[in-house]
Amino acid sequence: MAVLQPLIDLAEVCYAQGIRHVVISPGSRSAALTLAFSRHRGFEKHVVMDERSAGFIALGMAQQLKQTVILICTSGSAAYNYAPAVTEAFFQQISLLILTADRPQEWIHQLDGQTIYQAEIYGKHVKKSFTIPSDYGHKDARWLINRTTNEAAILAYSQPYGPVHINVPIREPFYPENEEELSPSADVRVIKKVETEATLSVETWHELLNEWDDAERILIAGGQHENSEKLNIVLSKITEELDVPVVGDSISNQKGNQSFITFQDLFLADADTGKLQPDLLITYGLSFISKAFKQFLQKNPSIRHWHISEDSHIVDTFFSLTQIIPVSPEYFFNNTFEKIDYQLFVQGSDPENDSSYKTSWTGYDLKAKALSAEYLKNLSVLNDLTSVNSIINSLPEGSQLHIANSMPIRYVNALGSGVSHLEIFANRGTSGIDGCVSTAIGAALVNNKPTFLLVGDVAFLYDRNGLLIQPLPGNLKIIVLNNSGGNIFRMIDGPASLPELENYFETRHPFTAKRTSEDSKIEYFQATDFDGLKTELSAFLDTDKISLLEVFTDPAENAKSWKGLKSYIRSNW
Amino acid sequence: MAVLQPLIDLAEVCYAQGIRHVVISPGSRSAALTLAFSRHRGFEKHVVMDERSAGFIALGMAQQLKQTVILICTSGSAAYNYAPAVTEAFFQQISLLILTADRPQEWIHQLDGQTIYQAEIYGKHVKKSFTIPSDYGHKDARWLINRTTNEAAILAYSQPYGPVHINVPIREPFYPENEEELSPSADVRVIKKVETEATLSVETWHELLNEWDDAERILIAGGQHENSEKLNIVLSKITEELDVPVVGDSISNQKGNQSFITFQDLFLADADTGKLQPDLLITYGLSFISKAFKQFLQKNPSIRHWHISEDSHIVDTFFSLTQIIPVSPEYFFNNTFEKIDYQLFVQGSDPENDSSYKTSWTGYDLKAKALSAEYLKNLSVLNDLTSVNSIINSLPEGSQLHIANSMPIRYVNALGSGVSHLEIFANRGTSGIDGCVSTAIGAALVNNKPTFLLVGDVAFLYDRNGLLIQPLPGNLKIIVLNNSGGNIFRMIDGPASLPELENYFETRHPFTAKRTSEDSKIEYFQATDFDGLKTELSAFLDTDKISLLEVFTDPAENAKSWKGLKSYIRSNW
Repeated sequence: MAVLQPLIDLAEVCYAQGIRHVVISPGSRSAALTLAFSRHRGFEKHVVMDERSAGFIALGMAQQLKQTVILICTSGSAAYNYAPAVTEAFFQQISLLILTADRPQEWIHQLDGQTIYQAEIYGKHVKKSFTIPSDYGHKDARWLINRTTNEAAILAYSQPYGPVHINVPIREPFYPENEEELSPSADVRVIKKVETEATLSVETWHELLNEWDDAERILIAGGQHENSEKLNIVLSKITEELDVPVVGDSISNQKGNQSFITFQDLFLADADTGKLQPDLLITYGLSFISKAFKQFLQKNPSIRHWHISEDSHIVDTFFSLTQIIPVSPEYFFNNTFEKIDYQLFVQGSDPENDSSYKTSWTGYDLKAKALSAEYLKNLSVLNDLTSVNSIINSLPEGSQLHIANSMPIRYVNALGSGVSHLEIFANRGTSGIDGCVSTAIGAALVNNKPTFLLVGDVAFLYDRNGLLIQPLPGNLKIIVLNNSGGNIFRMIDGPASLPELENYFETRHPFTAKRTSEDSKIEYFQATDFDGLKTELSAFLDTDKISLLEVFTDPAENAKSWKGLKSYIRSNW
Repeated sequence: MAVLQPLIDLAEVCYAQGIRHVVISPGSRSAALTLAFSRHRGFEKHVVMDERSAGFIALGMAQQLKQTVILICTSGSAAYNYAPAVTEAFFQQISLLILTADRPQEWIHQLDGQTIYQAEIYGKHVKKSFTIPSDYGHKDARWLINRTTNEAAILAYSQPYGPVHINVPIREPFYPENEEELSPSADVRVIKKVETEATLSVETWHELLNEWDDAERILIAGGQHENSEKLNIVLSKITEELDVPVVGDSISNQKGNQSFITFQDLFLADADTGKLQPDLLITYGLSFISKAFKQFLQKNPSIRHWHISEDSHIVDTFFSLTQIIPVSPEYFFNNTFEKIDYQLFVQGSDPENDSSYKTSWTGYDLKAKALSAEYLKNLSVLNDLTSVNSIINSLPEGSQLHIANSMPIRYVNALGSGVSHLEIFANRGTSGIDGCVSTAIGAALVNNKPTFLLVGDVAFLYDRNGLLIQPLPGNLKIIVLNNSGGNIFRMIDGPASLPELENYFETRHPFTAKRTSEDSKIEYFQATDFDGLKTELSAFLDTDKISLLEVFTDPAENAKSWKGLKSYIRSNW
């Protein structure tokens, strides 16, 4: 048996638990983990030098695969470089299993290399953090390692998904002898957990649907959610047949029905929207983007608010939550629809739903859509808003669009149904700009789909190290909106009028993505005016290798057109 | 009074506590902090977009200035991007005050943007972490904020120095009105702490010097320490007049005496070194680089081991510690020298010190130096070892040399007295590769000295975002040893012979520093052979702007010459 046999067995347990992808960053202390996984035939291995990028690449992969992805790094500050991605995974509920090699406990804080306090290093941003023993002599120690691996893998992949950390102290010698065979023990024990589906009892349905029937103005609002055909079909039936408005941001991926409300960002900002106030609000999914939508619900709270979530943590963004319903949205809405539509449960009840409520929402939505189109049609200058509008309309049906934080996600969200042909992803767990490039790379590595990333210059530069991996996925195309700084600070009222705007907020810079693209053998296109964008966008879309289109715009012009859109809608309402 | 007056006063307290430099990363939630510091005339402000780089730039500055440097970032994952630098600062005992803007507590985990669990986010890697209140209405809240700021600033700058964190939740509105004056309250209270010097009583000296007198073989060994003329002078006297050998790594900056032992990395690896075993070991400073030296002392433990350190944490790297002496090394060695030399205390005592012990150490040192020079003289091929040797010999007297982790620090350390004309810095707190470039940039921004950075290709790429700041310091020159991957894995016995070497450990890549240099307007030089190095090095040293010299070498050749050096010494001993 190899000295580090329990670590070889750890890899086997991970495989048996269904894990297939491992992102490895080079290191010596972690060699035993690297070898245990790289010599196991069942895993696809990805090597990423910069752990900050590695974390987000793993996150992008796990998001697509709906599987746990493993991260392996050496001891020391390497583990901390994962922290931004771990935190995003925690709030976006993505399953990661982080294996950090460590020195044995006795060497901590002894001024020896790459030795920090790694236990519990991610604080409250993991579902659980384990440290396994570094001595394997006693059978109980091996029992603990096996049990911990099983528990960590099960936990990462239990609803709600999330990151789980195993800190792995390793004693020397940690390299095998040259001829040494590394293979799992014959008796590696795998502890499985059967899957369950959370369902509601007849009595609970009765109570809930009585509340439904009592409501005149029911509103269904989706936070961040994967693109689910099953969910979209039932939401479509609900809005069509039960006359309930369904509203969602770009990241809620509500698609396939023109009645879905998508322009709320524009029409809720200013219009007199009191008549849109719900009396029963039903939410599902994770975060909402639209500040206008959040403020509207905070100012116009519903009498009852049901949140469909298997997470028992209380999230009460709209100050109105009355009921947590811990089932999947698919189960909830399908059952609701059937029970209401076929009147299975509600005998003698008279639904109070007011169909004019839905008409109000769709009326506002259509008006905002028309005004927005009108405004954009009359804009003949190339800026971030007009280029985002042109670009999203040109992306092929069924593509993935990953959107970076800061302005890109705001542009797309304001353009409402403009992305209804695309599957939308964004790191809205923590809404950082720190891993947008790497996340899209991770996604493209495993999704076999045309994958686009829309990113500003600052977020692109911040995370450009993602582009150091090899090979880069050929199905990834990156669009950089280069306005020479953090343009968002010119959009929000506070900093826009401060003398510190350019130096301390926007932080103007002269960098472009050209040389970074050349370094990574990425085909590079650039546009500085509308005609250029048209030609370059077409060439950019046609190329069958990884490519990058950089659109250069003027920050003041961007602010003018963005604020102009909102004031146009306000003044023409 | 401005709504956020307590934060404006916080800046004033920091100024009164002697802080002068602030590194700011752009953000909206942090606007009040940004404005409080940027509108205060007393601070020098540095704006850095990528918080990972910002952390190390602040660390590099604080290291030079021997002052606390402030970091300001917005809420969310930004704070986690500081973590690698905070950890390095903790173990390298560098004074940072980290101000992380936060959402008010009630918004945590409500799926709102950029809101994570920021309290205590750096775990055990700060001296203390505070969270101040977000409501300032009650006078006791303002009392707490003032007191916290004073305590944090005092703590960061108390021995041993280190990072201190204040988490700053901020409620909207956090931008001032346009015409609003931001100035500190007239009655901002500053709490000062007088400085003390730790000294030893007559009785303690008596006890210690009795132990000294009883020892036949006293060895003084310096860990990482700043370049201190005062300390070097007294160590020089001790080795000359008391015949005590003084040994140190490149980062201990022992200079000015040719008897100082510097080639221990080479001669302790293999030679029969039993007669070098000390009976009294006296150490000071932080970490040791030389693995050979550490293993020598672990295998040949001294009877008594005194560690001179004002940190009460027990660091027992050599399994032999018997006495912590919590005073400064300057105080300790000056007093020791005077008391021994003038026999002030030790009446009737007969020092047992055996002068042949020092002779043994210097004999080994000279022999290793001569053999190393002989070996290098006969090497005519350009590789990392020969280029490091040529380069360090060409650097002007009194320059600073910052050395990245992994191989560069090992090369320099093996070359012993080759850097005795330079002031040496390296991030040996955690020994990560993650912030070497940014640390050197931070140093060069404030030190007014010719500043060189010696860095491998992987560490350079990892931290290249440091080069996005503007303007870059003109006194910085970067030497990149580009061997196309993590060459260290070819040097250490374990991975060198594994089939996974190139893919999972070295991680070979085709990147160079050329385009990154062009992006940042850095003058770029490159060398691929000895003649080229000679010419390019001279041009590189002559230019008066920021410049980068990239030396391309072959990884196998590097391993051959590095292992060759050690075997040459072994076989010719």
